[in-house]
Amino acid sequence: MNPFAEKKNDQVRELGERELIQKISFWLGASTPPSPFGIGDDAAIIKASKKDLVIAKDSLVLNKHFDESTPPQLVGAKLLKRNISDLAAMGANPTEALIACLIPETTSTEWLEGFYQGLTKTADAFSISVIGGDITSTFAELAFTLTLIGQSGNRLLTRKSGRSGDTIWVTGSLGGSIQGKHLEFDPRLKEGQWLACHPKVTSGMDISDGLASDLLNICPNDCNVEIETNELPLSDAAKTIAKDSGENAIEHGLTDGEDYELVFTLNKSCGSSDFLQAWKGVFDLPITRIGKLVTRSDSSEERIRYLGDLNELKSKGYEHF
Amino acid sequence: MNPFAEKKNDQVRELGERELIQKISFWLGASTPPSPFGIGDDAAIIKASKKDLVIAKDSLVLNKHFDESTPPQLVGAKLLKRNISDLAAMGANPTEALIACLIPETTSTEWLEGFYQGLTKTADAFSISVIGGDITSTFAELAFTLTLIGQSGNRLLTRKSGRSGDTIWVTGSLGGSIQGKHLEFDPRLKEGQWLACHPKVTSGMDISDGLASDLLNICPNDCNVEIETNELPLSDAAKTIAKDSGENAIEHGLTDGEDYELVFTLNKSCGSSDFLQAWKGVFDLPITRIGKLVTRSDSSEERIRYLGDLNELKSKGYEHF
Repeated sequence: MNPFAEKKNDQVRELGERELIQKISFWLGASTPPSPFGIGDDAAIIKASKKDLVIAKDSLVLNKHFDESTPPQLVGAKLLKRNISDLAAMGANPTEALIACLIPETTSTEWLEGFYQGLTKTADAFSISVIGGDITSTFAELAFTLTLIGQSGNRLLTRKSGRSGDTIWVTGSLGGSIQGKHLEFDPRLKEGQWLACHPKVTSGMDISDGLASDLLNICPNDCNVEIETNELPLSDAAKTIAKDSGENAIEHGLTDGEDYELVFTLNKSCGSSDFLQAWKGVFDLPITRIGKLVTRSDSSEERIRYLGDLNELKSKGYEHF
Repeated sequence: MNPFAEKKNDQVRELGERELIQKISFWLGASTPPSPFGIGDDAAIIKASKKDLVIAKDSLVLNKHFDESTPPQLVGAKLLKRNISDLAAMGANPTEALIACLIPETTSTEWLEGFYQGLTKTADAFSISVIGGDITSTFAELAFTLTLIGQSGNRLLTRKSGRSGDTIWVTGSLGGSIQGKHLEFDPRLKEGQWLACHPKVTSGMDISDGLASDLLNICPNDCNVEIETNELPLSDAAKTIAKDSGENAIEHGLTDGEDYELVFTLNKSCGSSDFLQAWKGVFDLPITRIGKLVTRSDSSEERIRYLGDLNELKSKGYEHF
């Protein structure tokens, strides 16, 4: 659906700011609490909690993360789920969201309603309140930024806390997300919370820029990474795309962006089969051991060594710049 | 300074995302705490506090809130100060900020450094930590969204909690902000905190869209507003602009945007001279009584009645759409 309307009556500028905010409050329904805990004051209040808060911020831009063919419901859902995936990576529990809409005056009111429908449905599914935000008109570009607040569990999973010898694992399967998964993924929230509570899991993050790129973020400064490329769980989409691109499907599994799976490290003292058994007692989603952290002895070494059928990458994963 | 660079070497895309984030961390210096309390993980942690949190979100867009002639330091400062003004309006104390940068690949690295210099200086002045954010490339438009978190004081000032008979007051002077104040204003933070603690102050908000527009937001549903237009504290800039525009300076005081002053209501049981004396014991900034809330008897009545030399507005204040 085209995010922009041709007829003036169908554009958000016909509403004016005050009426647009009223409409947004209506679209959000019970997902936004009464002011000052929700929309309607200079700022929103979050009641004090005994737990640490965890806070993430992520954006969507038209023709980058979605296009004119994307149903607006999926855009709203994706904006929230991207942020849920960030909190999942730390094992936190999302509770409140604020949304900044940066939209031209010609934005279609109907499109925006669909966007908030998708957002609200996802917020409800994850028991998240939408407590506020901001609307600003732009000249041409359509973009959204969401701030997601959550509560810490008993333990938080951080990125660089793994050690040499730790095994590296991923949830689900990788690659080819552009074929559809980038819009319709399930953030690994329960999985991330379970991993954070497992004392032998040493670090974790979500895979959004492609595994090859994100591995650098989870690799401590005194370690390198070894990946068994033949072990990588490749999605069917990665294999289909590989047929068209002529690349090895492993390349797609390593470098395609927006997998929204988790990558985590497991202390070497924890046996893989014991860990797998514990996981399978709770989740149907497969996990796969794909490599390990090794000691970095020389700063000139490649940070990631690919073992198996693919030893060198052509692309380096998604770069925002 | 032009936010976009012509030479590829001067553009942010030459850095790539990882290096750009490293640079931003460097520019922020001590204003960003070590990960996971600052930049560097999937989300940032805020330690639990016994106080309620207050959270605001506001954006800046090139050619709307600043232009190519604006020093980037002032843009960074303005982004943060706009949000501080929102928290000031509630009497909260700002503590942490997250920034989303939505910027084209051709954005000048030098301009962005200036932007973060201004932001950092302001963050330091108000003891605010910059704990995270997001960088996303756009096609042409340059915009920033900031989320500001603060702690509630003993009492929070909300918008619609005034009652009929309450007097209406403003801080400072109004109008003509476009001549410079919109970039170089002091958010009324201490003032807002003092007002929130004063038991006779019944409601408050900051004036960002122009008093005439914002008064509607502070007016409870069972009240109307009466404004003594001859009492309005007009800025010198409003008077200067009025000479050029041919409008009454009062019109500018009521409808020009971005004053970043506070408007608040005072219980009718509190005498104006007593209140003024208490205020002057603490602040040099003038405050002015400009009108009162009156009972709304008929839903067809105009919500705002202008008494004095100006009885009707030509403009209605700043509308974002």
